[in-house]
Amino acid sequence: MTTELGGGELAAGIRAEVTATAAELTAAGTPPRLAVVVATADESSAWYVRSIARAAERTGIACSVVDLGETATPDRIRAELAALSADPAVHGIILQTPLPADAVVEDLAASIDPAKDVDGANPLSLGRLAAGLPAHPPATAEAVLALLDHHGIPLSGAHAVVVGRSTVVGKPAAHLLLQRDATVTVCHSRTKDLAAVTRTADVLVAAVGRPELITAEHVAADAVVVDVGTNPTPDGGLVGDVDADSVAGRVAGLTPVPGGVGPVTTALLLQHTVASARG
Amino acid sequence: MTTELGGGELAAGIRAEVTATAAELTAAGTPPRLAVVVATADESSAWYVRSIARAAERTGIACSVVDLGETATPDRIRAELAALSADPAVHGIILQTPLPADAVVEDLAASIDPAKDVDGANPLSLGRLAAGLPAHPPATAEAVLALLDHHGIPLSGAHAVVVGRSTVVGKPAAHLLLQRDATVTVCHSRTKDLAAVTRTADVLVAAVGRPELITAEHVAADAVVVDVGTNPTPDGGLVGDVDADSVAGRVAGLTPVPGGVGPVTTALLLQHTVASARG
Repeated sequence: MTTELGGGELAAGIRAEVTATAAELTAAGTPPRLAVVVATADESSAWYVRSIARAAERTGIACSVVDLGETATPDRIRAELAALSADPAVHGIILQTPLPADAVVEDLAASIDPAKDVDGANPLSLGRLAAGLPAHPPATAEAVLALLDHHGIPLSGAHAVVVGRSTVVGKPAAHLLLQRDATVTVCHSRTKDLAAVTRTADVLVAAVGRPELITAEHVAADAVVVDVGTNPTPDGGLVGDVDADSVAGRVAGLTPVPGGVGPVTTALLLQHTVASARG
Repeated sequence: MTTELGGGELAAGIRAEVTATAAELTAAGTPPRLAVVVATADESSAWYVRSIARAAERTGIACSVVDLGETATPDRIRAELAALSADPAVHGIILQTPLPADAVVEDLAASIDPAKDVDGANPLSLGRLAAGLPAHPPATAEAVLALLDHHGIPLSGAHAVVVGRSTVVGKPAAHLLLQRDATVTVCHSRTKDLAAVTRTADVLVAAVGRPELITAEHVAADAVVVDVGTNPTPDGGLVGDVDADSVAGRVAGLTPVPGGVGPVTTALLLQHTVASARG
């Protein structure tokens, strides 16, 4: 029997707390505000930004979307991030990807004040996370851990295998798992015999951005699988990095897509924003 | 047959380059200078600092040891690091450990200008390294990779297992190995059945600080083993994290202690210092 490790209940709980905190902050004269900087015409990015803005407003957080257009230069983006960092009315800043071809997100994100870096995109946030110092982790990576905790999955001494080595998910998730005393393996496109490695996982985190890459041959019978993938399908739907039909019935637990990591990620972005507003 | 993967030749080559660069810089009116900040009376630390100072001076780098005493407060140490960061005559800064009990190295090292952070101790350096941006890696972690490269050990697609998750060695070594397309596993004191995990390694990096922890049962027959340990023995010698007698004859290659990672680490600290002086 495979248990569905949904994120809806956890996300709702976080949003309820955020709503209460946002109301307190607003009553105290500090209405929390999130700014999302956009420099793309990408449609799935626009969809994501709208969903964040809606979620923010529903919890009482004002959300400004600053659209610089897809021809924005790196300097222009950097200047905007610096201006928002200096603006005392803004408490959280997200730099949305994709960016124009000559812009490097890790480089530009260094212009986000670490205190307002609610999606942990500034390399200083990642370094502080890796060094065990307080920092906002990237929300998606934190959502992986939050979901595992919510469903009572033990991590200390477990073998966690992360497929994907991105700066936004794979690497920070590896650090968070390591902090929780898991033995951590990071796999990627150059890994030889991926299935042999992933079959050794007690906890498997798929964060590679390849639709349904992970199938029954990649998983041990008692594994817990967290699917971070959100790959658009031709019919306008979403599919994860895990082939749910293939692994269902075999693994102990699986997070659904949609409805797993996604809603928790959004809720954590809002939680970081009110935490930053509270100071 | 186990090949000894010594660091002496590589270190000598690096020092020769450093000596030439230091002479050029001095002739051009920018004599390179390294500053080592010390706040301990620890004897093995004092030994290490003397060895760095001697190596620096031999290559034409001036070395100032700033001894703040073992009662130095975190604020005093931070102020010294900031002053050295602002001093244009100083090109490299090392914060020596151990530190007084109330001081956290990762926290204090944030006061080292990243350009002068020749041992990659500032969390920003670690974050930039993890994000794939230019940064000084911690010299010991970089020495592991330099030794493997010097001896022609392939890394792409290899399974590298790092034992130890310190901020100064284990974590940055994992990032450097990942950057080189190895599949990377990080083990530590909470890892269950360490020997079973380390036996899957093509490349095993022991950086845990426990004398002779790694024995024949921990290694595959064709593995390459890098021993980062430098544990003092009662008779004033040094012993690694690997039991060399136990693994000798079994593995394909092993770095000696002393004479492996150590001299390469020192040489890289000096290389970072002249690189920083060159700007």
